[in-house]
Amino acid sequence: MKPEGASLVGFGSGSPDGAIFRAFDPALNTSIEPVFISATLADADRAAQLATAAAPMWAALSGAERNLFLRLIADKLAQHAAVLAARATQETAIPLARCEGEIGRTVGQLRLYGDAAESGDWLDARIETAIPDRKPIPKPDHRSMMRPLGPVVVFGASNFPFAYSVAGGDTASALAAGCPVIVKAHPAHPGTSDLVGRLIVEAVKECGLPEGTFSLLFDAGIEIGQALVKHPLVKAVGFTGSLRGGRALADAAAARPEPIPVYAEMGSVNPVFILPGALAERSAALAGGLHASAMLGVGQFCTNPGLIVLQRTGAAAEFIRALTAKLAATAEATMLTPGITASFRKALDIRSRIPGVRTVGAALRRDESGHSSVAKAMADKKAPPTANCSAPVWFETDAVTFVRNHTLGEEIFGPSSLVVWCKDAAEMREVARHVEGSLTATLHAGKSEEAQPGDLVAILAAKAGRLVLNGFPTGVDVGHAMVHGGPYPATSDGGRSTSVGTRALTRWGRLICYQNFSENLLPPELQSANPRGVRRLVNGEWTIAAL
Amino acid sequence: MKPEGASLVGFGSGSPDGAIFRAFDPALNTSIEPVFISATLADADRAAQLATAAAPMWAALSGAERNLFLRLIADKLAQHAAVLAARATQETAIPLARCEGEIGRTVGQLRLYGDAAESGDWLDARIETAIPDRKPIPKPDHRSMMRPLGPVVVFGASNFPFAYSVAGGDTASALAAGCPVIVKAHPAHPGTSDLVGRLIVEAVKECGLPEGTFSLLFDAGIEIGQALVKHPLVKAVGFTGSLRGGRALADAAAARPEPIPVYAEMGSVNPVFILPGALAERSAALAGGLHASAMLGVGQFCTNPGLIVLQRTGAAAEFIRALTAKLAATAEATMLTPGITASFRKALDIRSRIPGVRTVGAALRRDESGHSSVAKAMADKKAPPTANCSAPVWFETDAVTFVRNHTLGEEIFGPSSLVVWCKDAAEMREVARHVEGSLTATLHAGKSEEAQPGDLVAILAAKAGRLVLNGFPTGVDVGHAMVHGGPYPATSDGGRSTSVGTRALTRWGRLICYQNFSENLLPPELQSANPRGVRRLVNGEWTIAAL
Repeated sequence: MKPEGASLVGFGSGSPDGAIFRAFDPALNTSIEPVFISATLADADRAAQLATAAAPMWAALSGAERNLFLRLIADKLAQHAAVLAARATQETAIPLARCEGEIGRTVGQLRLYGDAAESGDWLDARIETAIPDRKPIPKPDHRSMMRPLGPVVVFGASNFPFAYSVAGGDTASALAAGCPVIVKAHPAHPGTSDLVGRLIVEAVKECGLPEGTFSLLFDAGIEIGQALVKHPLVKAVGFTGSLRGGRALADAAAARPEPIPVYAEMGSVNPVFILPGALAERSAALAGGLHASAMLGVGQFCTNPGLIVLQRTGAAAEFIRALTAKLAATAEATMLTPGITASFRKALDIRSRIPGVRTVGAALRRDESGHSSVAKAMADKKAPPTANCSAPVWFETDAVTFVRNHTLGEEIFGPSSLVVWCKDAAEMREVARHVEGSLTATLHAGKSEEAQPGDLVAILAAKAGRLVLNGFPTGVDVGHAMVHGGPYPATSDGGRSTSVGTRALTRWGRLICYQNFSENLLPPELQSANPRGVRRLVNGEWTIAAL
Repeated sequence: MKPEGASLVGFGSGSPDGAIFRAFDPALNTSIEPVFISATLADADRAAQLATAAAPMWAALSGAERNLFLRLIADKLAQHAAVLAARATQETAIPLARCEGEIGRTVGQLRLYGDAAESGDWLDARIETAIPDRKPIPKPDHRSMMRPLGPVVVFGASNFPFAYSVAGGDTASALAAGCPVIVKAHPAHPGTSDLVGRLIVEAVKECGLPEGTFSLLFDAGIEIGQALVKHPLVKAVGFTGSLRGGRALADAAAARPEPIPVYAEMGSVNPVFILPGALAERSAALAGGLHASAMLGVGQFCTNPGLIVLQRTGAAAEFIRALTAKLAATAEATMLTPGITASFRKALDIRSRIPGVRTVGAALRRDESGHSSVAKAMADKKAPPTANCSAPVWFETDAVTFVRNHTLGEEIFGPSSLVVWCKDAAEMREVARHVEGSLTATLHAGKSEEAQPGDLVAILAAKAGRLVLNGFPTGVDVGHAMVHGGPYPATSDGGRSTSVGTRALTRWGRLICYQNFSENLLPPELQSANPRGVRRLVNGEWTIAAL
């Protein structure tokens, strides 16, 4: 099983006339086989037409049928895990074991969302029976539930070649909700996308589903993505990536003659507030945990802890010294793409020039080598970095500088975090108030602080989709209770939804109410006998019983 | 209790420096006392600041406490129903009995949404407990639920001075969800708004709630509304009104540095498809019911049946003749405002000039009087219409003309519907495919057609938020199962939510997950003991039991 390089438009291939690009091995800094052909606008249109044609049949499937399909995709991913992981490692420089783990997560996600489709909980089915003798007018029978929105476009992410890509959470939840999916493959891992996409098409065929159920389009640029978001037959968009990219798509979708929802998860700064008591109780463990969390995936996680807020105490200085030693001992590692590497270095350079901002550990290193700039700090490493390698570079500043300089609150995608020194608890709260919307916010507290945390928890609750106590933000469990969302700019929808967990299905539905419908015209989930056994709110009581 | 004419900014009054406008009695075609002062931009800013200051306390209230507050507002409305209804009748020309009925509905709505807040169902509370020995890494404890978005701006509607206005569904659901509310009063009924607003402020004070809980701002123009939607402290918007107005607000909100959701319900055409069997079984009852539904509120309902689709049969011609006779016998009635009256007349004029479109009953009337144009049809009435009176004017066309002319699918706000003649069932489906997104779609079928309706139900299901079988679209029951929404342009959010019914609360929330939180830091709804008794998904099972 090898990548073939053509877009998958339903059961066919994309046009051979599209612009050509190649996959890239960031570790070897060289392009790799095969050649990929960008989809044409005609391919995008055909994918949308096919998806629209497939939508009614796809929407009419039972949750159990959708579950079978999602589980077949999961089985195929598991079966081909070795070849998939090998290709992804080559294209992303993500270690093989992590690729294997991510495939496992993706498989579990497909099965969980399939189960969610089968249970039908997400449909929010409700029945209120007629009251013929109500005064002044009879009350009709009303039955309502979620129905799929229609064709969904999913943009794969660079940093999760499986879990947030072709068969990732957006695709799995949209299919589970009954929507056909068109994936715009991320050009950072086209071969992996190609392999996964072909497994999905196989599953579509084996299940006898319509060909428009799934398409996969390649494009090294933005033209196809923009065309898909503006296509009149496309009804919703899922995206994981940068703020700039997500906002551009959300703006394009909002400006359509018929606006459509864009669920864009755009990364975030993920502040970590460390109270003095936490340092007093477990400074070493905290330094180890924070370092490990921040270095995961070469800092290229959307939940990467990018902002560390502390009070200026001797214990805190000691804590940062310990952390600095760990950072200094951290080997460079290959980033996902040359573009991301270049952006990371540029962001470091810009940040290092902001007055009042210094590199963390510069003093430490200056003692040894006399260097203090970012370039020098990077040059301190034993081996010269290869083309796409980056070492961690952290910065520090004071609360006043942070509050005054908006750009210090922005994410740097890669292994760089900003330490913000506060003179007291009030300044910590002030920094918290100035933090932008984030996927997560973390609080480390000692026992007595945990008992009396003051306003900090409430301030942080207004800023994030997930609050972590005495832990680390990386690691997003896929379950019923997970929230992977948050106020803008973490997401485009202000944190009203989540892209991870079973609640992700509700993003792809709209509500329909049936008034005085006869049994044969109702969807099975709303028929009196409840043949699909879904949980329903019947005259004010939740039940799975028949009427 | 009389209107005083000043905006209510928290517990204070708006600036006396704003532009002045007067309420208007459309039946007498004259302005009435008192003078109203438009809010200033400073008033809008202060209302937003106060709402933001109130938000944390308001969010921390229990659902039961919010219920007490909403019920106090309901009690005050009921207590002052006579004076409220009298003022509303004067400002809107809506008959007194309907105003009283609408107050009853508004009172019931406040209580129902209060109960929904107290039950906590809408919070979608979920708990997944820790699995410390999970491999490869321990699973933390996750607990998540909806939390209020923050200050919400509500735009009152012209056609429902109570149910969709100051204390209407958007206000009630936002308060129930824990959000402070700033209402932009509709200038068509400022006195009614003033009275209701002051009752709400009384309730805020009596409950000891913070003053930013509620503000009411007047403005005869659009400046204050636009400023509120663009205000950085405002977090969401509810709107009921025209497509042009709603879209302008949605566009402004989407273009903010931090985009916010706009839930705009923008009216719709509400197609009614009548199959031959329905006419064979109950032509007379259908003509009576459709006429009554279409004439409700002088056709100024968002669920007004604006499009009647039939097959060209003898029975259908007879049906339309009977309907025409009823229309001819319908007295002119006063519309809500001079502006709406003028828009209605202009829309009639434009539609009457479209080639292939004729006034319904023109032939009938031409037999008697020789007149056929809209102006002549209106002149046929016995008494000349008063300034803001309109008689019903219906049009008819054929399916081919309808499908070719997009403007024929647009709503005319007032007592005008369009009859579309189809040559067969296939043409009816073709018309259905060309209908725009709508709040409702109605199907009248005979017994055998109900058993075998073909594709029409599926086509209509893609077009509307509520499907009505053998009934009429007007009449929106406020309950758990109601959906008052629909695909664009019926709503700005594509029908993902409803502005009526208990699901309306979820529009004002965002999701927060607490990871490994200690009991004292969790919201009560997520504490193990479940002190507020809300329904929760605990490790995959819905329960109200404590952990």
